[in-house]
Amino acid sequence: MNKEGILIVLSGFSGSGKGTITKKLIEEYHYSVSISATTRKPREYEKNGREYFFFEENEFVRMIDNQAFIEWAQYLDNYYGTPKQYVEEQLKAGKDVILEIEMVGALAVKEMYPEAVLIFITPPGIKELKNRLMSRGTESIEVINKRLRRSYDEADVIHKYDYLMVNDDLEKCVKDIHAIIQYEHNKPIRNKEIINQLKNELENIVKGDD
Amino acid sequence: MNKEGILIVLSGFSGSGKGTITKKLIEEYHYSVSISATTRKPREYEKNGREYFFFEENEFVRMIDNQAFIEWAQYLDNYYGTPKQYVEEQLKAGKDVILEIEMVGALAVKEMYPEAVLIFITPPGIKELKNRLMSRGTESIEVINKRLRRSYDEADVIHKYDYLMVNDDLEKCVKDIHAIIQYEHNKPIRNKEIINQLKNELENIVKGDD
Repeated sequence: MNKEGILIVLSGFSGSGKGTITKKLIEEYHYSVSISATTRKPREYEKNGREYFFFEENEFVRMIDNQAFIEWAQYLDNYYGTPKQYVEEQLKAGKDVILEIEMVGALAVKEMYPEAVLIFITPPGIKELKNRLMSRGTESIEVINKRLRRSYDEADVIHKYDYLMVNDDLEKCVKDIHAIIQYEHNKPIRNKEIINQLKNELENIVKGDD
Repeated sequence: MNKEGILIVLSGFSGSGKGTITKKLIEEYHYSVSISATTRKPREYEKNGREYFFFEENEFVRMIDNQAFIEWAQYLDNYYGTPKQYVEEQLKAGKDVILEIEMVGALAVKEMYPEAVLIFITPPGIKELKNRLMSRGTESIEVINKRLRRSYDEADVIHKYDYLMVNDDLEKCVKDIHAIIQYEHNKPIRNKEIINQLKNELENIVKGDD
């Protein structure tokens, strides 16, 4: 086979459930996942190298200078970035890689890798979105409102994504995203070898009967 | 809902099984199907208005003049065309419509309807393709060779399709095509209403907390 893997970008409103979806895609379907780097403080349950690689700001800026990121962005006063090396190794080895990143980063990835598949996740409605943010209990109402304002801006860019998924049933949403990725493997651009082989076989027959 | 239907174009090499696949998609999943018009002679099992509308050449040319076709083409000395009215009515009513047409027509459709989904079907290899054509028993070896030479030319344009399906398992191929069409409904361009609704709800919240 020796086919390249697909780069999948998962974004969504804060509180859309994209983190849980990513975790389930990895656990249930064994996707490779790129762990982002960030300068934000870890939440209580987060471990360095699991949810994120946590860096000090000066370290992060040095990596930017060394072009070690596919994309990086500032969001709510913190830096976030996707380390390049791991992703490219996985894709070359034929593994599908999931990046769970913010919208600005997602669009930067699409520019660098036009064949990347961008999936945007939303809860069915905004009331549910606010409830999910509140029930997390890790953030102040000010931060939540800041996130909602950010979501308002993000809604303008959803049309640049390849797929929009409404997460009203977590298990179904995970299964659907997995299916979508599988069918993305049927795009002709990812099957050049098969097309060339058919072409060669047809050429032999056509020349044979002349 | 009031969402528009998707226009699906199925093409494939002669002998790829695309006719059987179309029939099964209609029977099992109740897609609307556009019946093509043609000037070619009916095969023994074909009925006017079922596989094709069969026309004399002068009638067909008059319909071309009246712009009654989405696309039409000449292939192996016969005319083929897709009547426009039925297709547009079905799409507006929210029904997904399947067109089973040749490659030249398929690309013309994509030009007129950029959101159409083009699916190309191939058997796993060319030996199998030739066998399927021979076992049909309805055509001379000359016609079969002509079809294979045509397939050779067509192979150059497969990359313009949205999906390439290898028909090595009929039931699976039908199921996969149905799934692909369902997931095409998740494209943001087909969900403008949902996106606008989210945007409006977010706007209300953002204004509310200022």
